[in-house]
Amino acid sequence: MSVDRILPTPEAHDLLDLVRELAAKEIAPRAAADEAAGRFPRDLFTLLGSSGILGLPYAEEYGGAGQPYEVYLQVIEELAGAWLAVGLGVSVHTLSCFPVSAYGGAAQRAELLPSLIGGELLGAYCLSEPQSGSDAAALATRAETDADGYLVDGVKAWITHGGVADFYTLMARTSGEGARGVSCFHVPAGLDGLSFGVPERKMGMRSSPTAQVRFDGVRLPPESLIGSPGQGFRIALAALDGGRLGIAACAVGVAQAAFDVASAYARERRQFGSRLVDFQGLGFMLADMATSIAAARALYLEAARLRDAGRSYGTRAAMAKLYATDMCMKVTTDAVQVLGGYGYVEDFPVERHMREAKVLQIVEGTNQIQRLVISRAVARGNAQ
Amino acid sequence: MSVDRILPTPEAHDLLDLVRELAAKEIAPRAAADEAAGRFPRDLFTLLGSSGILGLPYAEEYGGAGQPYEVYLQVIEELAGAWLAVGLGVSVHTLSCFPVSAYGGAAQRAELLPSLIGGELLGAYCLSEPQSGSDAAALATRAETDADGYLVDGVKAWITHGGVADFYTLMARTSGEGARGVSCFHVPAGLDGLSFGVPERKMGMRSSPTAQVRFDGVRLPPESLIGSPGQGFRIALAALDGGRLGIAACAVGVAQAAFDVASAYARERRQFGSRLVDFQGLGFMLADMATSIAAARALYLEAARLRDAGRSYGTRAAMAKLYATDMCMKVTTDAVQVLGGYGYVEDFPVERHMREAKVLQIVEGTNQIQRLVISRAVARGNAQ
Amino acid sequence: MSVDRILPTPEAHDLLDLVRELAAKEIAPRAAADEAAGRFPRDLFTLLGSSGILGLPYAEEYGGAGQPYEVYLQVIEELAGAWLAVGLGVSVHTLSCFPVSAYGGAAQRAELLPSLIGGELLGAYCLSEPQSGSDAAALATRAETDADGYLVDGVKAWITHGGVADFYTLMARTSGEGARGVSCFHVPAGLDGLSFGVPERKMGMRSSPTAQVRFDGVRLPPESLIGSPGQGFRIALAALDGGRLGIAACAVGVAQAAFDVASAYARERRQFGSRLVDFQGLGFMLADMATSIAAARALYLEAARLRDAGRSYGTRAAMAKLYATDMCMKVTTDAVQVLGGYGYVEDFPVERHMREAKVLQIVEGTNQIQRLVISRAVARGNAQ
Amino acid sequence: MSVDRILPTPEAHDLLDLVRELAAKEIAPRAAADEAAGRFPRDLFTLLGSSGILGLPYAEEYGGAGQPYEVYLQVIEELAGAWLAVGLGVSVHTLSCFPVSAYGGAAQRAELLPSLIGGELLGAYCLSEPQSGSDAAALATRAETDADGYLVDGVKAWITHGGVADFYTLMARTSGEGARGVSCFHVPAGLDGLSFGVPERKMGMRSSPTAQVRFDGVRLPPESLIGSPGQGFRIALAALDGGRLGIAACAVGVAQAAFDVASAYARERRQFGSRLVDFQGLGFMLADMATSIAAARALYLEAARLRDAGRSYGTRAAMAKLYATDMCMKVTTDAVQVLGGYGYVEDFPVERHMREAKVLQIVEGTNQIQRLVISRAVARGNAQ
Repeated sequence: MSVDRILPTPEAHDLLDLVRELAAKEIAPRAAADEAAGRFPRDLFTLLGSSGILGLPYAEEYGGAGQPYEVYLQVIEELAGAWLAVGLGVSVHTLSCFPVSAYGGAAQRAELLPSLIGGELLGAYCLSEPQSGSDAAALATRAETDADGYLVDGVKAWITHGGVADFYTLMARTSGEGARGVSCFHVPAGLDGLSFGVPERKMGMRSSPTAQVRFDGVRLPPESLIGSPGQGFRIALAALDGGRLGIAACAVGVAQAAFDVASAYARERRQFGSRLVDFQGLGFMLADMATSIAAARALYLEAARLRDAGRSYGTRAAMAKLYATDMCMKVTTDAVQVLGGYGYVEDFPVERHMREAKVLQIVEGTNQIQRLVISRAVARGNAQ
Repeated sequence: MSVDRILPTPEAHDLLDLVRELAAKEIAPRAAADEAAGRFPRDLFTLLGSSGILGLPYAEEYGGAGQPYEVYLQVIEELAGAWLAVGLGVSVHTLSCFPVSAYGGAAQRAELLPSLIGGELLGAYCLSEPQSGSDAAALATRAETDADGYLVDGVKAWITHGGVADFYTLMARTSGEGARGVSCFHVPAGLDGLSFGVPERKMGMRSSPTAQVRFDGVRLPPESLIGSPGQGFRIALAALDGGRLGIAACAVGVAQAAFDVASAYARERRQFGSRLVDFQGLGFMLADMATSIAAARALYLEAARLRDAGRSYGTRAAMAKLYATDMCMKVTTDAVQVLGGYGYVEDFPVERHMREAKVLQIVEGTNQIQRLVISRAVARGNAQ
Repeated sequence: MSVDRILPTPEAHDLLDLVRELAAKEIAPRAAADEAAGRFPRDLFTLLGSSGILGLPYAEEYGGAGQPYEVYLQVIEELAGAWLAVGLGVSVHTLSCFPVSAYGGAAQRAELLPSLIGGELLGAYCLSEPQSGSDAAALATRAETDADGYLVDGVKAWITHGGVADFYTLMARTSGEGARGVSCFHVPAGLDGLSFGVPERKMGMRSSPTAQVRFDGVRLPPESLIGSPGQGFRIALAALDGGRLGIAACAVGVAQAAFDVASAYARERRQFGSRLVDFQGLGFMLADMATSIAAARALYLEAARLRDAGRSYGTRAAMAKLYATDMCMKVTTDAVQVLGGYGYVEDFPVERHMREAKVLQIVEGTNQIQRLVISRAVARGNAQ
Repeated sequence: MSVDRILPTPEAHDLLDLVRELAAKEIAPRAAADEAAGRFPRDLFTLLGSSGILGLPYAEEYGGAGQPYEVYLQVIEELAGAWLAVGLGVSVHTLSCFPVSAYGGAAQRAELLPSLIGGELLGAYCLSEPQSGSDAAALATRAETDADGYLVDGVKAWITHGGVADFYTLMARTSGEGARGVSCFHVPAGLDGLSFGVPERKMGMRSSPTAQVRFDGVRLPPESLIGSPGQGFRIALAALDGGRLGIAACAVGVAQAAFDVASAYARERRQFGSRLVDFQGLGFMLADMATSIAAARALYLEAARLRDAGRSYGTRAAMAKLYATDMCMKVTTDAVQVLGGYGYVEDFPVERHMREAKVLQIVEGTNQIQRLVISRAVARGNAQ
């Protein structure tokens, strides 16, 4: 069912129409089989790249589409509704490109951005480690400076696209403890010493490889550094502000997809002589689902508009990620319930949606970390 | 604490600034004492009228300010945060003016609107009856046609401003059963046969009189009819679409006010050697409160923008009313909790906010009716 | 509606029958008017005392009834359902008697208990202070030792029965900082230097005075000390374990009373041609209310049975207080919703129930403190 | 972690100890691998049968253990915590034995019960059909009477143990429409015309086959009928009352198991220099989880004690099923959250617990049906 969207331009309307068509024809039909087989749909990212969708929010001079976040995120939402592995993959790719785009020098941007955001290369974002998840600033991977640049040793964990990405945006420690000792690097795939763990056996998102990325004496030239030494953690957080909006949009997309299946089922299935949707017991549940989806969408869009206007939006992004993903968990769980036994089996996609929803409460800052971010804004008297 | 709002024009910014100042200086300081005494602040409505705030969303040619709903509702929100009796009073007044404005003939509009929306007169909206609340179409008040116009008999219940309003927008039955037999009328105060019940002894909103409005052979001239005969229920529902956005804005205002008190308290009060806000137990609760307030505001604004764009917005208005008022009930209840014993006493306004919140889940369609409205849209495949 | 209770003895059945009759005839009919007037029903406590209900869980040798907590709490529940000021008053009285009963010497018990638990005297429990609520161990009221006993200076806050009690069970500091410097005292009313603040203007429970208790050079003889010097905080916590079960029972009583009103209304009121209860929208809400009431009752009874069996029950008591009072807040808020406008006015008791519910989430350890108590048990691997 | 249980006899304590040991040694270690492989652990049921656990609540004269439901259900809880496929399997077996036990004639009981409840044979319960799930009384499978007995045609759906059971307790239509035309039959496996669908590809519980059971001209002798003709639906509902308590116990077991993993993890894992459990953000979440588990257990035990006392317990059983399974869904979802990324992968069992939880909200009456059952009791004024 087509969502009644507010979009800023006719061009954006056309873009959304294109994406919906791509999603319906090329993406959604493959989701179930590829998820069952654990196959990564690399070709779909190539297709999206060639359609200009991998660089939507970046400047046109570097091959991006110069779209506002307000539009970009609704594209992510549509993709995620068709297949989360694709929607989230695009969001992670955008996240991985952000440091070069926002903090890279002019030369770096000119050299790297066209291929990064033009759609030929797929990115991964390397922040978490086995011992530092929520406490990201405690990361232990080291990038030692020497005459030729940097020598990197350490292990990154829970890396989306780990092993299939073409480049890795890496946070590593270049000096002492804490957030100030972290720097950001661009790491192309294929370097000596770079290897990958066995993909995690996940509850859902099985088509999207998540793996450890291991740096064993990986050599990086000096120009791999993005921004200044010690600026890495700040870059990482700024990237995550945008990334969290991407996750929020993914959550709305998955929830909307589950709702569409559940509401269609409730309009068709009859028990006790009536359509399920006409019983208030299910009808009110569907009303609550639709309402919370609309609220989550409105919330991420409001945050996106703040970002698009150049205003502070980090706290709102955390709110959007928190609210949208908790909403998605509840809506998908309820969507399975609407279908009853049919919801619990793979014949319908809602059980997949429910398994997908769970990961969204965890990635790019667990929802506990989002609450921490927001509560700190409250503590500063600055949460609106 | 000032909310970080998205507003469409510099003029709207100035308007909001003006309203905030009025609210802080003229409205908020009187709320506690007037509520304790059950005093209706008629003079504040006069002040708001003379400041142009009673006709914000109506056309400038009739004395309105021609503001989009997106702006008007944020004004309501600020007023309600200062004192719900005022914010909700303005919203009810707007609701009462809507039928003439949207369905009145040219002559009616020219004659009535300047005084209605110009701020001299205060309105009330008469739909509910003792035996027909949620089932509004079952109303029994009759307006019999005779040679001189209409003769009205019946009792309206739960009428905000009942007994203090200058005009009453009335739904009465002019023919057979059900929704199609209802017509809409403009009734000035002071007519023979019009009387009022004792104001209800309410849990909150004690300054805002709610009373039965009794029609005992009240004579109305033919030109009292608004729209066509039998069009009344449709007018009533269209009025409520807008009214529900007003209630949603009120709910966000009350919740924001309670949050502001609770978060300020949590930043100041210390226990166990730290500020309350620095304990995750309360900090996360405040984060959830701030998040749900932001979501509710975003949701009603999105609905308002649909309305402002001339698009269908009734289902979204129901969603906004449902979500915002449930949110307000929870946030105000939690705000009392943050203050502990101090929250339970009249020394702080949060116990008042909590009592005010409850009525918002009930008025202009209980939240069960909103769910019914939304579930019917779901049943039509039309809830986005 | 009579609850289908599991009771251990025929005697307990008779007791419950007696209490229900007392509640229906003597207590419930006065609640509304006395609450509106803020009148403390001292005579009802005299009546309960003479009926043997003020000493239910204490030993028969001291005038108690020797009833297990499992039975005592169900009595509290019935009383609170009729009028919380009475049910909670009895629970506070029981709490105030506990220290002498459990930690008093043989002579103290023999001298004090018969009048304390026999029903002639009404107790109050003095732990909180203006600056130490949740952090009770930080209390500042001092009891300095001198030749004649103790000299007490300080202010206690939020004291139920403050100003109307016949004795005050006091926690005061006899040595250095923290929990270990606190001792427990028995303080009869009427001593020089003992005075009371103006009763708090509360959202609900207006018949039950809550006031500061001020000690200004109050002299206590040596035999006022209960237990050993420095044992006071431990005594206070042990008392609260039982007190919290009392609050849980009160919460179940208030919730059940609100449910009874709401379900009866839903069986009688018709809209759209059917009884409200027959619409799943309200029927399912009532089902959820009934379910959570039953769960809360079962939870406090299970904790009571652990206590009656002499087993550790403090964590379970905290769980029961937490769950039952959160449940009560939700159920009473929903009960108002079932009645719609009628629920929001004083013609029905549900708006009072909702105002009463809120205080239960705050007293005898806010629900945040209960979560802290339980989470510490989880941290010890000891929460089942 | 061992739960602090209230048990009626020393024998029951010994039984629980035995079951815990069996669960820890024989059952839990196999769960992950067998679930991954979709292997049904038939041998474990044989083991449980030989240990006397398949007939716990049935009379000793037929080989049962004569245990009260209060004890039986705590056994189910322990088994389900180790592996839901086993705990739920035992509960379904008990459900399948109930009709013969409670409604069978003396000869039937003597002939069938010893093998049914003695542990040699495993049962399945055939009520649902593809077109009649929640509306079970609309079932279409027919058992036509002829000279030799009955001729059965139809398809049963969502049958636990479908294809692996030794006997099938069947509800089929022997006369006209509705509940009164249904009769109950005992059907041994292996009859001509009895076949099974491909097992459903379920989100969880993959070791426990769920399949269609197809009757294609299956001949049953006259003595297959259990109870009277037309009594089948009543038998089915009575069976479900007990079965729902079994599901409630399963839900508590799964939730407790997830909680045990999550709380142990939170006690070990450190971030920001402290154990996770010591942050209120997670500590309070764990406290809420522990509280709701305790409430659910207390609720099903209270219902069981009513049953054991021969009192009416159907509404309480519906409440226990509703509350416990909704609780289990929430607790397991939160348990995954506590572990973060580690919770989302198969290295820990919590992702399995979360997938298992979902089915419990659906089986033996969806939670919507439970609410319907309870709301009807409310409508009769009979829900306590």
